[in-house]
Amino acid sequence: MASPLNNLGVVHRNIRRADPAAAERLSKFGVATIHEAMGRVGLMKTYMRPVYHRARACGTAVTVLLQPGDNWMLHVAAEQIRPGDIVVAACTTDNTDGFFGDLLATSFKARGAHGLIIDGGVRDVDTLEEMGFPVFSRAINAKGTVKATLGSVNVPVVCAGAQVMPGDVVVADADGVVVVPAAIAGEVADRAQAREDNEGAKRDIFASGVLGLDYYKMREGLEKAGLKYID
Amino acid sequence: MASPLNNLGVVHRNIRRADPAAAERLSKFGVATIHEAMGRVGLMKTYMRPVYHRARACGTAVTVLLQPGDNWMLHVAAEQIRPGDIVVAACTTDNTDGFFGDLLATSFKARGAHGLIIDGGVRDVDTLEEMGFPVFSRAINAKGTVKATLGSVNVPVVCAGAQVMPGDVVVADADGVVVVPAAIAGEVADRAQAREDNEGAKRDIFASGVLGLDYYKMREGLEKAGLKYID
Amino acid sequence: MASPLNNLGVVHRNIRRADPAAAERLSKFGVATIHEAMGRVGLMKTYMRPVYHRARACGTAVTVLLQPGDNWMLHVAAEQIRPGDIVVAACTTDNTDGFFGDLLATSFKARGAHGLIIDGGVRDVDTLEEMGFPVFSRAINAKGTVKATLGSVNVPVVCAGAQVMPGDVVVADADGVVVVPAAIAGEVADRAQAREDNEGAKRDIFASGVLGLDYYKMREGLEKAGLKYID
Amino acid sequence: MASPLNNLGVVHRNIRRADPAAAERLSKFGVATIHEAMGRVGLMKTYMRPVYHRARACGTAVTVLLQPGDNWMLHVAAEQIRPGDIVVAACTTDNTDGFFGDLLATSFKARGAHGLIIDGGVRDVDTLEEMGFPVFSRAINAKGTVKATLGSVNVPVVCAGAQVMPGDVVVADADGVVVVPAAIAGEVADRAQAREDNEGAKRDIFASGVLGLDYYKMREGLEKAGLKYID
Amino acid sequence: MASPLNNLGVVHRNIRRADPAAAERLSKFGVATIHEAMGRVGLMKTYMRPVYHRARACGTAVTVLLQPGDNWMLHVAAEQIRPGDIVVAACTTDNTDGFFGDLLATSFKARGAHGLIIDGGVRDVDTLEEMGFPVFSRAINAKGTVKATLGSVNVPVVCAGAQVMPGDVVVADADGVVVVPAAIAGEVADRAQAREDNEGAKRDIFASGVLGLDYYKMREGLEKAGLKYID
Amino acid sequence: MASPLNNLGVVHRNIRRADPAAAERLSKFGVATIHEAMGRVGLMKTYMRPVYHRARACGTAVTVLLQPGDNWMLHVAAEQIRPGDIVVAACTTDNTDGFFGDLLATSFKARGAHGLIIDGGVRDVDTLEEMGFPVFSRAINAKGTVKATLGSVNVPVVCAGAQVMPGDVVVADADGVVVVPAAIAGEVADRAQAREDNEGAKRDIFASGVLGLDYYKMREGLEKAGLKYID
Repeated sequence: MASPLNNLGVVHRNIRRADPAAAERLSKFGVATIHEAMGRVGLMKTYMRPVYHRARACGTAVTVLLQPGDNWMLHVAAEQIRPGDIVVAACTTDNTDGFFGDLLATSFKARGAHGLIIDGGVRDVDTLEEMGFPVFSRAINAKGTVKATLGSVNVPVVCAGAQVMPGDVVVADADGVVVVPAAIAGEVADRAQAREDNEGAKRDIFASGVLGLDYYKMREGLEKAGLKYID
Repeated sequence: MASPLNNLGVVHRNIRRADPAAAERLSKFGVATIHEAMGRVGLMKTYMRPVYHRARACGTAVTVLLQPGDNWMLHVAAEQIRPGDIVVAACTTDNTDGFFGDLLATSFKARGAHGLIIDGGVRDVDTLEEMGFPVFSRAINAKGTVKATLGSVNVPVVCAGAQVMPGDVVVADADGVVVVPAAIAGEVADRAQAREDNEGAKRDIFASGVLGLDYYKMREGLEKAGLKYID
Repeated sequence: MASPLNNLGVVHRNIRRADPAAAERLSKFGVATIHEAMGRVGLMKTYMRPVYHRARACGTAVTVLLQPGDNWMLHVAAEQIRPGDIVVAACTTDNTDGFFGDLLATSFKARGAHGLIIDGGVRDVDTLEEMGFPVFSRAINAKGTVKATLGSVNVPVVCAGAQVMPGDVVVADADGVVVVPAAIAGEVADRAQAREDNEGAKRDIFASGVLGLDYYKMREGLEKAGLKYID
Repeated sequence: MASPLNNLGVVHRNIRRADPAAAERLSKFGVATIHEAMGRVGLMKTYMRPVYHRARACGTAVTVLLQPGDNWMLHVAAEQIRPGDIVVAACTTDNTDGFFGDLLATSFKARGAHGLIIDGGVRDVDTLEEMGFPVFSRAINAKGTVKATLGSVNVPVVCAGAQVMPGDVVVADADGVVVVPAAIAGEVADRAQAREDNEGAKRDIFASGVLGLDYYKMREGLEKAGLKYID
Repeated sequence: MASPLNNLGVVHRNIRRADPAAAERLSKFGVATIHEAMGRVGLMKTYMRPVYHRARACGTAVTVLLQPGDNWMLHVAAEQIRPGDIVVAACTTDNTDGFFGDLLATSFKARGAHGLIIDGGVRDVDTLEEMGFPVFSRAINAKGTVKATLGSVNVPVVCAGAQVMPGDVVVADADGVVVVPAAIAGEVADRAQAREDNEGAKRDIFASGVLGLDYYKMREGLEKAGLKYID
Repeated sequence: MASPLNNLGVVHRNIRRADPAAAERLSKFGVATIHEAMGRVGLMKTYMRPVYHRARACGTAVTVLLQPGDNWMLHVAAEQIRPGDIVVAACTTDNTDGFFGDLLATSFKARGAHGLIIDGGVRDVDTLEEMGFPVFSRAINAKGTVKATLGSVNVPVVCAGAQVMPGDVVVADADGVVVVPAAIAGEVADRAQAREDNEGAKRDIFASGVLGLDYYKMREGLEKAGLKYID
């Protein structure tokens, strides 16, 4: 990996992507479940929202570091996309310009991308919904961008507060966006499956009126902590 | 009521709920109408939004005071819910963690809760929509919480800028969330009804092209205030 | 035009509206396209959002300058609306009160208004959706307003960061809100048409897998700027 | 107390102020100490900041409920001020207009006010600093206000997220603003004194290099919670 | 003036500056006073803050329209500065990069600039304080900018919500930033003087304990509006 | 390094700190200069502000991952501090509670810490100023925290948008906070020195009235980009 001193103006063409089978398995779980299975790390900030209802995406990350008001690197990134990837774009500063619209979406989709996660703005959101190309962004903004200043592709980035390495699995749904490091994608999928198996049973129990207080045996702990009931 | 010095770590089991008939009547009106009928007090901050389109809820408040990143008290609150209640959760600080998800929703629903108003985050929002369990929150957040520190149940709270007493009627729709003190719920329902009777007629009048300027006889007041028309 | 010293408390009855044919033509284009055709000026801040999914509006601006918590001037403005207008309301300060609801919408619609753009709050949003009256606002807020202090109608305003002159064409869709000065509305429509003609062809090209890098001939520029590919 | 339905347009002339001796004692402690002594309730939001460095205030609350862009009620409140009071002004909505400046400060000071806490904006801040009149506000704003719509004086208010009753003791310093209910002001002062006596000793211990881990005997709890040290 | 379609990429060399004598007179008044004298228009948003305590500036505006992350146009603007000017920089989008630091300040000062008002970020703020070069900005940010994309100099801009024409007088102090159109600068100075003459007398009256209620004869109006005193 | 699945509940006792001589050299430069010398990466978000005027800090990072409303790990971190370190505290979520005050500051100082950078709140800020213990934080907040849930010490963290590894050099001043990876600290110090040597000369040149347009030979580039001067 290049030194941080040379982190701008580079494109890494060969990245180690997470095992596609693990990514495929992770795509079946909700973000909340995966975040729990991860030990509660790797979540992006809550300002990242889907641009249309019920958008959902999962893929291996092609990362992009953008400059404010400049989407040159998204074009460079397009060439690095392989089927099953998801593009994760950070910016060197807070900026909500419309870096991405229907033409880039068409291009990304043609390359096999599963979606875009961008700590910035996007436009043409009605068309994105019609195309079924899932995008999670910080803002919606009609303002376009220039192509003048270099950023990077496939370098480590911090996107919406989460560290993302090229090749990590990124999963996004209505609850948020979570990053699963490539090396542990399979293990996290196992743990997520275990959680989900467990939750189905619990749902029936709670639906029958059993309280979490009893099911999780919380009463003793609450009493010890000093909780007082007043009639 | 306990002194404010003992306001943490307590659960009040017996609260005086608003008259259920009044709550039922209030459930038919929009939040804007009720807020007007109240004399324009009792509205929560506008950052409180429904987690799904057309969510709507009304009930008598079971209040909860949460600690940041900790949802222990929601489990304690579940036991205090009676059919027709709505849970209103405040936090001792600004915090948007995902305090609530589908399992707690299942439990609350089984107890007869009409919904949740929470000055914090929630998760599993797609499932909440499928369940038809209305939630109004400050944020959507996949991040779960611990169960380690005591808060309280059924103490007075400030939730999203509004004072809520246990047993108050709380109504929420696309326009916001309003709190109606238990003692005046019936009177507010009467006034809301009067407003609504009045508005239907007005809608027809304005649809016919009559101006508010004339209907409300504003022209004289405007002239007196010095309004100048320039051709 | 009155001096800025007399900018409050006035209503201009005769404004020069943009050519209706130009407005009609502009109504067919997306906001992002028009903003590009304008040379990337005239866009409102991204906090302006439609109050319902797929809302869309275009018209000639009747401008309003509101006082905080006071919607008197919206009633005054109603009389100045002609079919094809869109009301654009700014406020003398940041304020998200619910200045506008279903009754004013009924009145505006009866006058032939095409919608409302307001740097403030609105209420009755479910009804607005049912009426199909498009509104773009900064907030949704059940709180009503008083009628006590004069503002102005049809003076130049800054609305959500954009300068709007009475008679300008204003177009709003899911991507944002853009202001087209009356004098250049026709020319902007021409340019928008040219862009759109051009984009359809591009979409097919990108869908076929051609990269923007090649289509836009970016490779040389990137190399010159110093971009390095690392294997 | 008037019903909430009659909470606007009223001035309560006789309020029960906290014991002046208790207020005097509380004025010696920091806000953080008092908040701890209170059991960690009663703190305003962190957006409330002093308008000048080292501003500090303590007094018994004369509460004001303002309307947006309107400071009429601050004039009404002035008459209700007694020496040792602090004015606490909330607003019916989020509004940062400049409700207060040097003339009102002169008037408040002449009445014996100890300061102003306002969930809104103020102006003339250089003069306030020169006068030594402490103000804690949400914003600084040159924009003045009108005198057109009634609010209230000495009703319960929610100010910056905290419930304030007329007569409560309010203390403000660089760390924030805390509200002490009148009934427990003396007891809170006792507890604050106990904390402060205790802290001085601790400061010396920590200055000598003793760790909180040892002083507070945290090591066992950490181990039990599962903390792992890795070399 | 160029058409809005040609508003980017231009530098207007000849602008009509406000009368220097009027600017000089305005420099003596506080921003709040000038804003009142203007009829309460022309104020920038409250997020514009001085970068050091007691900074204060007044001058005739040289306007700049910046692109995000790009300060090229500040260098272009430097050449257009004449003694007594103040540079007012807007950006085509929300951006808080550090567009300006000690070197540009040195250059601006050498040209006779009285200060900088920038709807963006600046850096080297300790040095700016030592130089006594007043800057009012939206943010402080160490991040530098590129020089790649054209904006404009001396075109009309919207800066922090206020319309600014080249040559307008702009005044900034601890209370905010206000824009006085060149054509009325003298008249506004007259009105500001009249207000100030008036205020000195009032200060003494209020200091003596006279209430605004009596001085402004508000009691009748309050009673008419329905204010109720409760004992 | 532990896997991300085991990133909570661990304390790394042996970290590779940057060369103390490099840290010492970096402490002499401004944050803006270092950020430029780094190639414009590694800057924290601009919401991180010094809690007192002219605060400034530089040291090798002991990192902390906090849980919301819980400062247990700051006590654990204290033991890991060596003279010349700076504590850098991130939180698993957005939280502005007062995690740190004068007692912890006393303890940190006794251990030789050079300061604290915290993406959260702190209190006792007047005392911190008197002690001369520099703190850069997201907020000032009197609210204290509990000691109930494990976080970690000396794991990689994202703090205010910047990735920080234990042992990195962190420098903070009025312009912001920058992170210099340990491995390149010396090289960055060299580059910072080179920049600074260069800037002194430039300052004199610009003070003499030479324009950046000429000094940086921008005129040709501007013309090529299409800049038009209009008289």
